[in-house]
Amino acid sequence: MLTIYGMHDSGNCYKPRLLMAKLGRPFRHVEVNSVSGETRTAEYLAKNPNGKVPLLELEDGRLLAESNAILLYLAEGTRLLPGDAYDRALVHQWLFFEQYSHEPYIAVRRALIKYPERAAQATPQRMEFLLEAGSNALQVMENQLSRTPFIAGDRMSIADIALFAYTQDAGFAGYDMSRFPAVAAWLERVRGDEGHVPLHWLPLSA
Amino acid sequence: MLTIYGMHDSGNCYKPRLLMAKLGRPFRHVEVNSVSGETRTAEYLAKNPNGKVPLLELEDGRLLAESNAILLYLAEGTRLLPGDAYDRALVHQWLFFEQYSHEPYIAVRRALIKYPERAAQATPQRMEFLLEAGSNALQVMENQLSRTPFIAGDRMSIADIALFAYTQDAGFAGYDMSRFPAVAAWLERVRGDEGHVPLHWLPLSA
Repeated sequence: MLTIYGMHDSGNCYKPRLLMAKLGRPFRHVEVNSVSGETRTAEYLAKNPNGKVPLLELEDGRLLAESNAILLYLAEGTRLLPGDAYDRALVHQWLFFEQYSHEPYIAVRRALIKYPERAAQATPQRMEFLLEAGSNALQVMENQLSRTPFIAGDRMSIADIALFAYTQDAGFAGYDMSRFPAVAAWLERVRGDEGHVPLHWLPLSA
Repeated sequence: MLTIYGMHDSGNCYKPRLLMAKLGRPFRHVEVNSVSGETRTAEYLAKNPNGKVPLLELEDGRLLAESNAILLYLAEGTRLLPGDAYDRALVHQWLFFEQYSHEPYIAVRRALIKYPERAAQATPQRMEFLLEAGSNALQVMENQLSRTPFIAGDRMSIADIALFAYTQDAGFAGYDMSRFPAVAAWLERVRGDEGHVPLHWLPLSA
């Protein structure tokens, strides 16, 4: 059985869990708390030298890091990853957008609010910067989702899973979601797609 | 013919140029200077709402953003993108590592030194943070490249192209490369791979 090392409260770790749930595939969840330092132990760094979660372990022990690389691996051959070269390229485009232009602002602002351990880093200047940069990312999503029902086109894909992970908490993170009605409608569309589970869902085997 | 919109001095824009040169494929280069604001014009934002370069335009006018998504699209079916599912997943892993854990530190520190327009952002505190975070990324590469000749394994791939783009300037950006001998040896290995061209190379059609 596949193992996913991850923190139950992390959006990045939720991505592969949500995908596995949607695909109806069993897996083992191993909790690794990145906020309390469990990703920096020698044991964990031997598995992922970059010291991050999630991490996928295959049945034969081979390892794969990076949430969106895990999504691409697990979604191959399913309805959530198109076969057409250009359609697939657009999924890749939005996966990289998520990690470069969205997550570093929206996920980070969420974490600075959510975890008391990080409160000292939440300076007013930084929070304002994160608000502006994250709003830019939401505006880019709003432009796309005003034209297509899902982020990479007409069909749900792992790009929607990746972007849903932290966009669902953007309101909590301080972003004014009334400015992004197409994004808000898309959040509901993703929640309504077959096999959806919420952030804190874990498999019974955990 | 394919068109690549990009800034000749940007590592992210160099990635697809290097790949096209290695594949021996002709393309048109259109210079778009992101430092002087050319990615924020209405005309450019109509092509890429995220306002970034590079951008690939196919012969039929379809567009693709994100440097590493462009690499994946262009490398399909070539020696630089493995067909095996797990080998390909490792390429994906390193492409996401590059955009999340490497480029935001090393490329940004390089830009703050290189472009006078950005000097005001180069506070001592920020430069120190970028030095530490970028050194962590180089250490992760060092660990891997001490074990395999290329970043995703035994063979050169687009993950090497992506990471070469800014690692080649890490010394200029202030990183102590004597700490990373396996990375330094890998830089030479990538330069020696068939069809290599330097950062400022442009096609004759430009």
